[in-house]
Amino acid sequence: MTQPYDELLDSVREASLIGSTAGILAWDQETMLPRGGVEWRARQLAQLASIGHEMWTSPRIGDLITICEGDPALVESPHSDSGANLRELRRNYDRQVKLPQSLVAEIAKTQSLAQHAWTEARAKSDFQQFRPWLEKMVELMQQKAACIGFEGDQEAWDVLLEGFEPGARATQLQDIFTPLRERLTELIGDLLENGTPPAEDFNRERLPIAVQEEYVREVAKAIGFDSHRGRIDRATHPFCSGSHPGDVRITTRFHEDNVVDALGSTMHEAGHGMYEQGMPVDHAGTPLGQATSLGVHESQSRLWENHVGRSRAFWQWCHPLVQSKFGAPVAGYSAEDMYRAANVVRPDFIRVEADEATYNLHVIVRFEIELALLRGDIAVADVPAVWNEKYRDALGIEVPDDARGCLQDVHWSCGLFGYFPTYTLGNLFAAQLFEKAEGELPDLHDQFSRGEFTPLREWLGRAVHEHGSRYTADELCERATGEPLGMDALLRHLEGKLRPVYGL
Amino acid sequence: MTQPYDELLDSVREASLIGSTAGILAWDQETMLPRGGVEWRARQLAQLASIGHEMWTSPRIGDLITICEGDPALVESPHSDSGANLRELRRNYDRQVKLPQSLVAEIAKTQSLAQHAWTEARAKSDFQQFRPWLEKMVELMQQKAACIGFEGDQEAWDVLLEGFEPGARATQLQDIFTPLRERLTELIGDLLENGTPPAEDFNRERLPIAVQEEYVREVAKAIGFDSHRGRIDRATHPFCSGSHPGDVRITTRFHEDNVVDALGSTMHEAGHGMYEQGMPVDHAGTPLGQATSLGVHESQSRLWENHVGRSRAFWQWCHPLVQSKFGAPVAGYSAEDMYRAANVVRPDFIRVEADEATYNLHVIVRFEIELALLRGDIAVADVPAVWNEKYRDALGIEVPDDARGCLQDVHWSCGLFGYFPTYTLGNLFAAQLFEKAEGELPDLHDQFSRGEFTPLREWLGRAVHEHGSRYTADELCERATGEPLGMDALLRHLEGKLRPVYGL
Repeated sequence: MTQPYDELLDSVREASLIGSTAGILAWDQETMLPRGGVEWRARQLAQLASIGHEMWTSPRIGDLITICEGDPALVESPHSDSGANLRELRRNYDRQVKLPQSLVAEIAKTQSLAQHAWTEARAKSDFQQFRPWLEKMVELMQQKAACIGFEGDQEAWDVLLEGFEPGARATQLQDIFTPLRERLTELIGDLLENGTPPAEDFNRERLPIAVQEEYVREVAKAIGFDSHRGRIDRATHPFCSGSHPGDVRITTRFHEDNVVDALGSTMHEAGHGMYEQGMPVDHAGTPLGQATSLGVHESQSRLWENHVGRSRAFWQWCHPLVQSKFGAPVAGYSAEDMYRAANVVRPDFIRVEADEATYNLHVIVRFEIELALLRGDIAVADVPAVWNEKYRDALGIEVPDDARGCLQDVHWSCGLFGYFPTYTLGNLFAAQLFEKAEGELPDLHDQFSRGEFTPLREWLGRAVHEHGSRYTADELCERATGEPLGMDALLRHLEGKLRPVYGL
Repeated sequence: MTQPYDELLDSVREASLIGSTAGILAWDQETMLPRGGVEWRARQLAQLASIGHEMWTSPRIGDLITICEGDPALVESPHSDSGANLRELRRNYDRQVKLPQSLVAEIAKTQSLAQHAWTEARAKSDFQQFRPWLEKMVELMQQKAACIGFEGDQEAWDVLLEGFEPGARATQLQDIFTPLRERLTELIGDLLENGTPPAEDFNRERLPIAVQEEYVREVAKAIGFDSHRGRIDRATHPFCSGSHPGDVRITTRFHEDNVVDALGSTMHEAGHGMYEQGMPVDHAGTPLGQATSLGVHESQSRLWENHVGRSRAFWQWCHPLVQSKFGAPVAGYSAEDMYRAANVVRPDFIRVEADEATYNLHVIVRFEIELALLRGDIAVADVPAVWNEKYRDALGIEVPDDARGCLQDVHWSCGLFGYFPTYTLGNLFAAQLFEKAEGELPDLHDQFSRGEFTPLREWLGRAVHEHGSRYTADELCERATGEPLGMDALLRHLEGKLRPVYGL
């Protein structure tokens, strides 16, 4: 009875292989493609998507999954290789075959048109121009959820969330996000009203981009991104893309007057990249060799970006490197100046530019609006007013226009509903993991100050990377930290760091 | 009756699209791939090759070709869009379906093992280690030719040649190559015995690679390689790869003490690249949008590398650029010094390092040996002795060992029989084309000396590029130059340039 399982895995590896080819072409599109090749590239990617879809949804794969599920030896242990692979393959297969081709095509077409409308609407800050597209997209998302069907206590939004964060539920997220929002708003208010903001001149020094590039490459190498099994290139929007643990490609970006952004982007993507490089290579091309959820993926990027890259010990190590790389312009800054500049908190409009504390409020606002839209509690026409009110409540700022408000993110025009919360789930899990690592590696911060990051990376390898999707995100969290996911560790981390930085 | 033709072209475009995806992955493998990704990449490429082969050999394509061939409106004019496409599709289809899968698999397996054996044998300069693999490969090539079958007066080697140079025949090549070999041996002997070799110090100056890179990029741009529709990167072995006229990728290489090599490689690959960029874009993905033969492709690279890049007028333009880029180390060289240094002739062992005059002798030796092997006139065991004797006769040099003799090229281990002559066919056609261009653009050399290369590129566009494979190589030659391919123009070019350089 292992023969059908072997045949199933062979088919799955073939389908993954074509997906990994598409991944390389997509990476190339963002980093290397001359502009004359854009249209042809779209055709290449469409072809690969179609071949891949056909492979993933072939009736033979469905039959093989069913046959294997009938074999107790393969499924009795949910965390065995076969148990975990079959769990993931069943979910993915069902999600793909339950969607009628007509709906898939309509969503794809609407995405393309909606993105175009969104680009124009954002440029003019004119929500009305985007409104009909968002209405259409919400309707399509309702249909998508209905086609896939509700399992147990799922509501429509949960079905969409399931595509990114298997097993999670809106109500569960609300139980964490609602008090988290309150506590963050309080903390930020306290910092701004009663604290003394750190000087941020260091962030604004104009530093040559070629030297910034050398610098962030050295940091990526130091924290453990393996350049023999990956690359670092430039792209407008930083991302991580991997076709195999031996070929992981991250990108970063540079601004002459914002080296902290380049560093943060690089450490963030290197965190994603080290997760991909740490996947079990023998399971490449099968679910076991892949990330278990987007939230877990994000935890790896946020941990390196925030818990390491914004720590005092990191800047103690980094300070002489910065001095030797950039010379005169940074000569006057101490390690403490750099650490403090990396920890400025400022409520502002744009999510992707937000600091570590306010970031989660941006995410929670989106989560609340999405959920209300899918539940029918608000209409699309209400979005700008609701958005602006929530920014006033949560961040205490007046959104000046929709371009800097509800039109800022591309996600909704792409039909990425259920995606935003994974950013904050990543922050929560990162904090919980890091606290655990601090407990198990007592001299962790001393190691950072000496530029030793291997013990942490290896600890994360054992706690997270090497398991691929053997465990669900919830199981992984319990196994790695001994507790279910919650907000306490993140709050302890932010309060414990930011209050002293602000002199409180 | 146009409906089957449309369906045929749609299928062909799909098959080409997957091939172009493989092209990008192959380019990435040589330029970008981290070493940890090598094995996975081999699997990605094997999958694309298999999907592509299935598409190209689908019975439906065969049926559609047959149906279309039965429609006089489609085929009565051999140079109409449909006439030319059907001619090329028929040839390619027949060649692919006639080879049994078992033979294709055996050749692929043997290639892989033979290349491995060749690498080791070359490192040890031990032909005996490679001999059994070459015997096996010659036998497989005989079988390949027999499976494809002989058309008209074809012999086995012709069938292999047909894969690279449709319509050409060994006997036809012998009629040109035999006297060409004699004349070149005479010319080279005369230059070396009676002439004064030019100083080549300029070629040996150590110049920073970063500046060499800027320099060759400027030259590539000046001669017309369009960087909005292509890229230039580094690779160990320079090559040109294109997925579409809007996405053409060339590579080059640098040595600190050989800027002339970097320049030659870049102009050579840019010549290939401009052919690809000049293909009719509306026919992308169909034969009409592709090169008509390897020899014609090579003519475009050789023309820019040799007829332009080794001309006096080119160096008159280039001299101030070289001076401003490299400064002190080149300050003492005049334009004439540089021109003369680019035209040194030296019989030596290695083909890929050969000068413009001796290069063709390297090729003709290989052609003669391949033909004798396939005809059974010599045994594989005789190859080293025959090789060394031919080098003595043609180039007047004693081959010191097989690593610098018959083991130097990878081609035979890859089963690339019939490929070598296309290099010299390219040189012949380049010379004939260039002579014609000189006649039609009388101030061509004055233009070069002013850095104006557009008229030549546009002339080549009209003569060659824009036709894709509408005409066969022979037809293209007759149309563009008014004469069949011959050796006279190449000999006039070499004699006319090299005798004066050598003071004769």
